[in-house]
Amino acid sequence: MLKTRYVKDIKEGEQIRDLFLVGNKTQLVSNAGKPYLNLILRDRTGQLEGRVWDRAEEIGKRFERDDIVEVTGSVLQYQGRIQVKVHDVQKATGLPPDLGNFLPVTRKGIEPLWNQLRELVKSVKDADLRKLLEAVFPDPPETETARGFRQAPGGKTMHHDYIGGLLEHTVSVALICRFLAAHYEGVDGDLLVAGALLHDVGKVEELAYEGTFDYTDEGRLLGHLYLGAERISRICGEIPEFPAGKATLLKHMILSHHGELSFGSPKRPKTLEAVLLHFVENMDAKANAFAEAMEDLREGARWSDYNRMFDRYLFSGRFEK
Amino acid sequence: MLKTRYVKDIKEGEQIRDLFLVGNKTQLVSNAGKPYLNLILRDRTGQLEGRVWDRAEEIGKRFERDDIVEVTGSVLQYQGRIQVKVHDVQKATGLPPDLGNFLPVTRKGIEPLWNQLRELVKSVKDADLRKLLEAVFPDPPETETARGFRQAPGGKTMHHDYIGGLLEHTVSVALICRFLAAHYEGVDGDLLVAGALLHDVGKVEELAYEGTFDYTDEGRLLGHLYLGAERISRICGEIPEFPAGKATLLKHMILSHHGELSFGSPKRPKTLEAVLLHFVENMDAKANAFAEAMEDLREGARWSDYNRMFDRYLFSGRFEK
Amino acid sequence: MLKTRYVKDIKEGEQIRDLFLVGNKTQLVSNAGKPYLNLILRDRTGQLEGRVWDRAEEIGKRFERDDIVEVTGSVLQYQGRIQVKVHDVQKATGLPPDLGNFLPVTRKGIEPLWNQLRELVKSVKDADLRKLLEAVFPDPPETETARGFRQAPGGKTMHHDYIGGLLEHTVSVALICRFLAAHYEGVDGDLLVAGALLHDVGKVEELAYEGTFDYTDEGRLLGHLYLGAERISRICGEIPEFPAGKATLLKHMILSHHGELSFGSPKRPKTLEAVLLHFVENMDAKANAFAEAMEDLREGARWSDYNRMFDRYLFSGRFEK
Amino acid sequence: MLKTRYVKDIKEGEQIRDLFLVGNKTQLVSNAGKPYLNLILRDRTGQLEGRVWDRAEEIGKRFERDDIVEVTGSVLQYQGRIQVKVHDVQKATGLPPDLGNFLPVTRKGIEPLWNQLRELVKSVKDADLRKLLEAVFPDPPETETARGFRQAPGGKTMHHDYIGGLLEHTVSVALICRFLAAHYEGVDGDLLVAGALLHDVGKVEELAYEGTFDYTDEGRLLGHLYLGAERISRICGEIPEFPAGKATLLKHMILSHHGELSFGSPKRPKTLEAVLLHFVENMDAKANAFAEAMEDLREGARWSDYNRMFDRYLFSGRFEK
Amino acid sequence: MLKTRYVKDIKEGEQIRDLFLVGNKTQLVSNAGKPYLNLILRDRTGQLEGRVWDRAEEIGKRFERDDIVEVTGSVLQYQGRIQVKVHDVQKATGLPPDLGNFLPVTRKGIEPLWNQLRELVKSVKDADLRKLLEAVFPDPPETETARGFRQAPGGKTMHHDYIGGLLEHTVSVALICRFLAAHYEGVDGDLLVAGALLHDVGKVEELAYEGTFDYTDEGRLLGHLYLGAERISRICGEIPEFPAGKATLLKHMILSHHGELSFGSPKRPKTLEAVLLHFVENMDAKANAFAEAMEDLREGARWSDYNRMFDRYLFSGRFEK
Amino acid sequence: MLKTRYVKDIKEGEQIRDLFLVGNKTQLVSNAGKPYLNLILRDRTGQLEGRVWDRAEEIGKRFERDDIVEVTGSVLQYQGRIQVKVHDVQKATGLPPDLGNFLPVTRKGIEPLWNQLRELVKSVKDADLRKLLEAVFPDPPETETARGFRQAPGGKTMHHDYIGGLLEHTVSVALICRFLAAHYEGVDGDLLVAGALLHDVGKVEELAYEGTFDYTDEGRLLGHLYLGAERISRICGEIPEFPAGKATLLKHMILSHHGELSFGSPKRPKTLEAVLLHFVENMDAKANAFAEAMEDLREGARWSDYNRMFDRYLFSGRFEK
Repeated sequence: MLKTRYVKDIKEGEQIRDLFLVGNKTQLVSNAGKPYLNLILRDRTGQLEGRVWDRAEEIGKRFERDDIVEVTGSVLQYQGRIQVKVHDVQKATGLPPDLGNFLPVTRKGIEPLWNQLRELVKSVKDADLRKLLEAVFPDPPETETARGFRQAPGGKTMHHDYIGGLLEHTVSVALICRFLAAHYEGVDGDLLVAGALLHDVGKVEELAYEGTFDYTDEGRLLGHLYLGAERISRICGEIPEFPAGKATLLKHMILSHHGELSFGSPKRPKTLEAVLLHFVENMDAKANAFAEAMEDLREGARWSDYNRMFDRYLFSGRFEK
Repeated sequence: MLKTRYVKDIKEGEQIRDLFLVGNKTQLVSNAGKPYLNLILRDRTGQLEGRVWDRAEEIGKRFERDDIVEVTGSVLQYQGRIQVKVHDVQKATGLPPDLGNFLPVTRKGIEPLWNQLRELVKSVKDADLRKLLEAVFPDPPETETARGFRQAPGGKTMHHDYIGGLLEHTVSVALICRFLAAHYEGVDGDLLVAGALLHDVGKVEELAYEGTFDYTDEGRLLGHLYLGAERISRICGEIPEFPAGKATLLKHMILSHHGELSFGSPKRPKTLEAVLLHFVENMDAKANAFAEAMEDLREGARWSDYNRMFDRYLFSGRFEK
Repeated sequence: MLKTRYVKDIKEGEQIRDLFLVGNKTQLVSNAGKPYLNLILRDRTGQLEGRVWDRAEEIGKRFERDDIVEVTGSVLQYQGRIQVKVHDVQKATGLPPDLGNFLPVTRKGIEPLWNQLRELVKSVKDADLRKLLEAVFPDPPETETARGFRQAPGGKTMHHDYIGGLLEHTVSVALICRFLAAHYEGVDGDLLVAGALLHDVGKVEELAYEGTFDYTDEGRLLGHLYLGAERISRICGEIPEFPAGKATLLKHMILSHHGELSFGSPKRPKTLEAVLLHFVENMDAKANAFAEAMEDLREGARWSDYNRMFDRYLFSGRFEK
Repeated sequence: MLKTRYVKDIKEGEQIRDLFLVGNKTQLVSNAGKPYLNLILRDRTGQLEGRVWDRAEEIGKRFERDDIVEVTGSVLQYQGRIQVKVHDVQKATGLPPDLGNFLPVTRKGIEPLWNQLRELVKSVKDADLRKLLEAVFPDPPETETARGFRQAPGGKTMHHDYIGGLLEHTVSVALICRFLAAHYEGVDGDLLVAGALLHDVGKVEELAYEGTFDYTDEGRLLGHLYLGAERISRICGEIPEFPAGKATLLKHMILSHHGELSFGSPKRPKTLEAVLLHFVENMDAKANAFAEAMEDLREGARWSDYNRMFDRYLFSGRFEK
Repeated sequence: MLKTRYVKDIKEGEQIRDLFLVGNKTQLVSNAGKPYLNLILRDRTGQLEGRVWDRAEEIGKRFERDDIVEVTGSVLQYQGRIQVKVHDVQKATGLPPDLGNFLPVTRKGIEPLWNQLRELVKSVKDADLRKLLEAVFPDPPETETARGFRQAPGGKTMHHDYIGGLLEHTVSVALICRFLAAHYEGVDGDLLVAGALLHDVGKVEELAYEGTFDYTDEGRLLGHLYLGAERISRICGEIPEFPAGKATLLKHMILSHHGELSFGSPKRPKTLEAVLLHFVENMDAKANAFAEAMEDLREGARWSDYNRMFDRYLFSGRFEK
Repeated sequence: MLKTRYVKDIKEGEQIRDLFLVGNKTQLVSNAGKPYLNLILRDRTGQLEGRVWDRAEEIGKRFERDDIVEVTGSVLQYQGRIQVKVHDVQKATGLPPDLGNFLPVTRKGIEPLWNQLRELVKSVKDADLRKLLEAVFPDPPETETARGFRQAPGGKTMHHDYIGGLLEHTVSVALICRFLAAHYEGVDGDLLVAGALLHDVGKVEELAYEGTFDYTDEGRLLGHLYLGAERISRICGEIPEFPAGKATLLKHMILSHHGELSFGSPKRPKTLEAVLLHFVENMDAKANAFAEAMEDLREGARWSDYNRMFDRYLFSGRFEK
């Protein structure tokens, strides 16, 4: 069966029969004492709630969170939101479905972003750094790391939380760094761009993105700063005569890019390139999160809901007449 | 008398007779019970210490801090630094000397920076914002504000602490903002650039820069965020039909550009333009302070002394062989 | 139609038909899948919940939040609280109703408080400050500012959150300041009292109080500290030969009255009058909030619920026998 | 020998022979390798430095810090301050000198302050609290506590750091509390005034004030909050049928009067009386410290030196013409 | 009636009739407008929810929170948890039931723990400290303090939150301190063990544990640090010639054992014994809380739910194969 | 030449001619304008100041900081401390001197500590962990890491700042962990002890200890947490079939042992073993620092000077009387 109808197009009153990713599955009991299932049904365009009122226990045993399922039901409104009254759920069978249909994906396209990243790699003239970047981001992307890097989100929920988000964030940060290398005197531009391209490489291991985004055990216990620096250390070690000092500067940029100890960096930025990378990285995450908050504005709203990342309400800039 | 010899060129063993700005004057008593004067003698290239061992009380009455004085003396070394054994001091008379000889000045040149600023002003297409910017930065710079803006330092000691520093910082911030307006979707580029050009305009009133840089009473009691916002509010009020919302957005950018309440912003950034301006402004101040720290590296040093602005030691990036 | 029955007098079992302010309107769906409306119905004595079970969608289209509506329904209990089962809702027509019936109002009376404020104004002997205060608080209160000042609450939810609350808070603060001016040596009493009377004047613009209290856009983006200081700056500028230093001291008191940067003051108090004002202002807000917490004690309770302003539980002082 | 000449009256060029309290004694060595003594000589009007250049080792063995000594010497200037070139020092003999001549004393007079305190005690109508206050502050002050309370400073260096300072601070706080008890509804005025009178009673044990002010071991290990609460607990226990709840409320006020855990209060204020006491106590300490900073202004200065208690520079309110 | 069936053994589908402690009682109204009761039913093995759908108002009047009641009902599942559909509730009559059946109890047994504590007491050789410990922990435990100490939990919810928890925590801390006294040079072992045994004695008064654990008024207003130190001060005062210094050191250990002002200690640890006690006490609380979190792991889970005490998710150490 | 006389034995009045490590070398100028050298002369028992008054410039060129030099001079007192009036300085020649004579060394002896560490290694039964520990700490210690581990200090200045300090700290921490593994249920004792032995292994690279202790570039840029975890990762990778999960748990323990992000750990402890290790490690550092503070007590003092690590004054426990 093929996916035909996407969440963002589904309207009140429709009958649907389509594939979704199960984002969550909870068994509840109504006030009247009857068990029912509450489901989060996801595809790449968004998510909606589904409720199984009949045969909830039986149906609930057929699938788990993160499965792709075929859902039959009718669409109604609940508290101003679309909801599916689910008649039946079956686990999808046959060919493995394209995950890209079920998880949100960068709107900029993975291929165009990859091409931009490759241009950035090629802009690096320093031979050592260039070898390192080619090892991490080979073209075609035939290593596991490179494949993971193209898929991974930029974060679980805070910013760039979609397939390709890590790639999008990395390219944006590196482009700004390329600009700053020309803008400021005294910057080692190749080092800055290389650090920008590598700063979040640890997220490939920190996050799980084969279904609903989550942290891996390694991610929770070691974090992407450590994982990224260790990975770069290992790869530098495999490049003949890679200068130790250059590797140290790159690892320093990776470890310090959160800027402050209290944000999880074990060292604060101590080189000009590390200082600049921290600011650009932080700004890019915030700019993306701001854009997402504006997309999520309730209809007619000029102010966002309370935004946890910013710890404040955000303004669209539109005043009432 | 004309200034002929500058601090950075003065060497041990010289006899000097030249003009300096008095950065500080302190009367001390030697262990042997004899009074002497300790002076900080400044010009645009740096400062050195001077000591008056003879007739200290008499000579000390002739001038005050921030006066331009003619100093006669011989140069020796003290703790690895140049020091002047002062024979005589006279307050400078005749034509008022060019302050630019006695205070550090931006190396980028005030005229070139002013031209860049004017280009940025002209890049703003929004008619309201353009009128406002023309009022604040008229060409030629014939208002008191514009003249002050070209002279003022960017800060007392932390960053851009030289004549023209405010102009240099402003232009740098606005150029980066112009880049970001193209880089990110959804940015109001004219608003962002206008906010960048105006964000520190309150420093014209906050700082005193007719001699050794210091804060004014208004600066200490109200601060440049308030002073800048109030000034822009007043000027907007003088432009016919300037939209209230646009003025509010600009004032918000000025008030929030320190990013956090604990850094002196009474409101945190709540619009995309205010968020971006905060990051760029902070980054530019840090990049300048980093560059100054590298210029101040002790000879042969690879690490800076403890840097108060960064609260850490900074690294030149140079490893020992 | 006239308001006849107030929230605090409404009892279980009554049939009501009366006017209320709509504090909130939310469309929900019951477990059985049927849409219903949840309303907050307010008048000056309090608020209660109302539920529209029948014709919810139709009825919900007739009115918005902050409208005055005529509600017909029967009163029952829900979780130990009174609730209205609403039969019908109509938007109020005819003469505009007196908002004072629908929003909580200071128990001290606006006229008596205004008279106290006027006495405080008249107690100021300094001619400049007296002129300024007469301009801000003319008698009769015929300016928009003065009218707003008599109506505005002291805050949205934290303290003095009722019509006239700003006036009540201001008078209380100024009376304590008048006492302290006599108690301590070296205080400029007129300056202290003037600062007390003006410290929160920016709340007239920061808050919306034509319906449920909320922040205005200007309030959220600029805040009452900035708005108040700018307003006083403008008015001082309209008084011939108002001394610049006096205006600066007043603006400093307004900007610094929150005491710490992290509480939103861009400058901390640096004069004795600003230091005293900060303490008195803070104490008065807390004393009011404490009194409100005691009024809200659950029946028989000796300790308050968790209080967000104090971040703790508050004690009535009554021990069990 | 009698004290005849006080620090504040001593002028450059005088020969002196008088009694002083030794505030500090340090043995140093001149650059030329000769040992000398540096002394702080104190009396109730201030302190000056003294230097013993000859026979420093021999003379240094005759006395210790906090001794009263007879000093012979000549007065000169050093770095703009008066200094004594000491010829000889002898430990004072004969009758014990009046410490009040050698330590700073409240300018308000201990007797007048005691009378004010007694009036405040008598204003308390609650029989239990009255008995407690009479036990702590009997008239005449014949207990050790009462005698200590009349002598103790309010702090070591921060505020009210002079003999009688504790009494002065206590009376000031209690008078303001008496005013607030009338100003606010719902305050238990007797409890508030009693708490005000007792809040710092632990300082009698926390501080040593028989010479240069310092902390006692108990003060450093337990602090005046604990010491005060324990003392009041003990005294309440000796009053027949003193209500346990009242004792708890008083101990709570003592323990919580610093307002925040991070300022050393193990519990934050949870009653209205404790909340008010905290604000008044803090304000009074700051008002006193502000006044001291103004007294210490350098000649002609409008701004104070950096003030450690306020962590800022303080302004006299005087603008330049 | 006797307790026969415990929460941890109760299964879906059973009919029950047994005794429980009422942990909470809330009156609610169903969506259909019908009132019902929500109960928390506790015994020493855990708690479950109960709902009274019929005659809720009448039944609700028969008992209060913390009563022991006889409940009749049938057991079903709700959101994956066991729930009782309650048919009837009667307050228990007859002999007072053993509270130990209804509140969680230390698994280590109160008698064995008491014996360990007594061994620790006997290990103290210092005669003064030994007398003090015998007074606080007499054997048999015939004082009210000793009886309370054997019953009290270690905290309300955070750690050791069961009957005997205080005793268990105290013994564990003291055993580790005994080890450290031998491990480190320069430790006064008797002082350290005595401080360990006494550090939380104030919890006997701070907490109420005759029913659902809660804080007493004294606990909320004064806290167990103050209450413990005052109690030890009183008992030391009753021991002839107990050295004042030793009492001060013990009180310092009690007051400082939270380690930081912001954690409620009015003084930070300043002796070696106080420093060590703080670490051990904190570690033991955390180790217990960690163990409880592991016991509460959802079935099959490897990570805990969000843990409020640790402010993080905790890991069992088990990786997926 | 051999070292014969040590700092702790040198007395006023002696003539010395002996070897010292140059801890610091500063060129100064006396008030009389004459240049002189200030030296810090160190050996393993302490340090003293030396001054070269004659031929300072010539002598100053002969040696650098961290050289071993032969010093001739006479000993006198300065401000109560011993000081050397230096007549001559020559760089030591001939055989390289034993650094152990010039740097402070653990009093517990490196061999005994190494034997204790080996016993701890042998106590680990888990085969994987045992292999890892044998690889890191082989006996005899023939790897560079093991040799460095036996020499390295525990820190630059804060605690265990002497040769062998890292070894001493590690053994102490591991012994306490061995005890806790038996004391608490549910602890993986081998994992805890292995983590304890490895937690600070990164200090071998972080610190330079061939002369005056300092940080290496890698230490400042990456820190010992990262360096240690990366090293263990690498060594685990060289052990066939070392379980990935076990390596992750060890790396987590190393990275999290500072306990909080703000103390430099990029992740907080999330396993029981990591939680315990953090407390023990912190306690051991503090216990050592406390002991050092007691050794440094000024003669007769009962309280320490202000201690920067503790941010407080520390008490010896000795009361007067």
